[in-house]
Amino acid sequence: MDYNAYFAGKLESLRQEGRYRVFARLERHAGDFPKATRHVDGKRQEITVWCSNDYLGMGQNPKVKLAMHAAIDACGAGAGGTRNISGTSYLHDELEQELAGLHGKEAGLLFNSGYMSNWTTLSTLASGLPGCVVFSDAGNHASMIEGIRHGKSERVIFKHNDVADLRAKLEACDPARPKIIAFESVYSMDGDFGPIAAICDLADEFGAMTYLDEVHGVGLYGAHGGGLSEELGLAHRLTIIEGTLAKAFGVVGGYITGSATICDYVRSHASGFIFSSALPPAVAAGALASIRHLRQSNSERRLLKDRVASLRAALDKAGIPHMANPSHIVPIVVGDAAKCKWISDYLLDHHGIYIQPINYPTVPRGTERLRITPTPCHSEQDINTLVSALNELWKQCALARAVA
Amino acid sequence: MDYNAYFAGKLESLRQEGRYRVFARLERHAGDFPKATRHVDGKRQEITVWCSNDYLGMGQNPKVKLAMHAAIDACGAGAGGTRNISGTSYLHDELEQELAGLHGKEAGLLFNSGYMSNWTTLSTLASGLPGCVVFSDAGNHASMIEGIRHGKSERVIFKHNDVADLRAKLEACDPARPKIIAFESVYSMDGDFGPIAAICDLADEFGAMTYLDEVHGVGLYGAHGGGLSEELGLAHRLTIIEGTLAKAFGVVGGYITGSATICDYVRSHASGFIFSSALPPAVAAGALASIRHLRQSNSERRLLKDRVASLRAALDKAGIPHMANPSHIVPIVVGDAAKCKWISDYLLDHHGIYIQPINYPTVPRGTERLRITPTPCHSEQDINTLVSALNELWKQCALARAVA
Repeated sequence: MDYNAYFAGKLESLRQEGRYRVFARLERHAGDFPKATRHVDGKRQEITVWCSNDYLGMGQNPKVKLAMHAAIDACGAGAGGTRNISGTSYLHDELEQELAGLHGKEAGLLFNSGYMSNWTTLSTLASGLPGCVVFSDAGNHASMIEGIRHGKSERVIFKHNDVADLRAKLEACDPARPKIIAFESVYSMDGDFGPIAAICDLADEFGAMTYLDEVHGVGLYGAHGGGLSEELGLAHRLTIIEGTLAKAFGVVGGYITGSATICDYVRSHASGFIFSSALPPAVAAGALASIRHLRQSNSERRLLKDRVASLRAALDKAGIPHMANPSHIVPIVVGDAAKCKWISDYLLDHHGIYIQPINYPTVPRGTERLRITPTPCHSEQDINTLVSALNELWKQCALARAVA
Repeated sequence: MDYNAYFAGKLESLRQEGRYRVFARLERHAGDFPKATRHVDGKRQEITVWCSNDYLGMGQNPKVKLAMHAAIDACGAGAGGTRNISGTSYLHDELEQELAGLHGKEAGLLFNSGYMSNWTTLSTLASGLPGCVVFSDAGNHASMIEGIRHGKSERVIFKHNDVADLRAKLEACDPARPKIIAFESVYSMDGDFGPIAAICDLADEFGAMTYLDEVHGVGLYGAHGGGLSEELGLAHRLTIIEGTLAKAFGVVGGYITGSATICDYVRSHASGFIFSSALPPAVAAGALASIRHLRQSNSERRLLKDRVASLRAALDKAGIPHMANPSHIVPIVVGDAAKCKWISDYLLDHHGIYIQPINYPTVPRGTERLRITPTPCHSEQDINTLVSALNELWKQCALARAVA
């Protein structure tokens, strides 16, 4: 069998569907975010990034950079091993304690990515509980879906954010079986919120554990950045709150928080945790500085809200339809992979505006979109420039469709 | 159901088996590795680390630290997104090209950890090839096993390093089916080498792809640190060479290298790649500096060999049995989880010598061990101190057994 030819054929299908992914090659400018230099065909182009998950610009925060510099000088580049075999720095421990405090939980546990925290924790808990049933929101992130599959327990998918459907499915399940309800606070592609309180009520009624993915909520919601569960005063009702250090906190890594026993169980049994080299001490130090800053500063969150409101108002004024939601994420649905990519390429090449097209499998086919993420670092001028470029494109819509 | 009580019971079983893991809380000293400060019970203890996978001490290399500092100042803390959505730095691209060059391949692809590179690539390739059979060495790492399982193809486990058994199993398989042979160059817990040439011969004969895990080989073997496959002149015969940035290269992250088509296929289809935030640009920069250094410098590799030989000679002289193997890994099998932990605790508390006990599931039950990893940074004095402490313990063996 000619493996290369086989795989090349699969790639050709992606190209024909218009969903072959081309990565923008960026040089982000610390101190000048969201400005960046794009390296393309041996040339450099100055651009404005409108699709970063560095939602608060903490990746360029001086305290975060300083903490990373200091940790590199003190402890070196890497951790030197898995957490168990010489890789635990006191900074990992401090960060886990800080995360526990952020969510009002007894303990925290770090992973190399948010993907790993979801995949590893859900698979370890589900496979560790004999007869477990996992109730999973239909809109859950790929990492949760893969983790639940990997756990090999029975899984029941309930309609997205549909509490009545979840109730019906819980009622149909043997009351004696262990149960986990897995869902998100902020769904990243539509920007809608999960019904946290109602799901906690059902969990209490049916004796289920709750697993809440807060990766698009932490740092951004709640008086101390504890996420939507903090903002709604519900953190104490959740069994496990999972989050990321790579989005609003601006660094990299994932984590869970929960009871000391559950974190210790995952720490002691999870293949993806046990057999991964630990994050560098400098990453832990940077994340610590970022979390500590956002626990006491509300200005970034306030400014973000202002910018989101400004952008939405400007889009409305220009008559550009955007998806209504209560979050900081502003999706503009295009509904066609090739067209979405064409618009994105045009914005980038002609206006220096970078919004990556979002295609299947990240979103369902037919809902391909531009997903815009304003930050406190975008100026009113940036917003005007963006909306006027979109406006020009929308006016030329017939042309755009013809070219696509 | 009382979930906490259930999980607490599981943890109690680990404690009773003597394999409950206690992480040493370290403050590594950049510039003074393998010395570190252990934070324990609010006190500080100066120790020597003898179990790090920072095999060459590159975590404290000035060029590596400098590159990380520069990238933090230029680009900030994190990448700001997944590779597809604003998270690709030109440094990621340069690193992938460097890795391809290191192994003589067309392309490379980065992951957040070695675990993710194995799990994601093997599951994506196996599930992408209809009717695929994966032939997996019985000694393969957990991340490969989990990836192969996740790919849901048929899997055939052949006896560790047993080429005759592999041949028999290939012969028994339908010639028309796609095949992947997955194995390692250096098995991390026994330190033995995989029969790379013989497996490549079989792969040619039976039309199989080869997937070689070189995580304990890269940086350490070959004239340019390309791993055992470089040292043996076999890199060009392997379909995919996988490696890590977290061990000999001293930073964090994993990767694959192979044909441009295969790397592009994994890039375009792998859930664990697509949905993970990219490594920080500073991590990529540090890894780049480390690889470039080790491609042109042999002194670290030479010094490591000297240290390994010195340690083995000193152990022989003291009559302390250690597992024979051709690698840089020096295992001393204790064969009992509780006893292994007791010896490790004693060395740490009484001698400031840190060797984490290795228990199930990292090694099979009954083969619990001290796994010693000398580095170029350990002095002859460090070796003498270690061996005399071990000697003292071995002499008191009856006492040690009684206490355990």
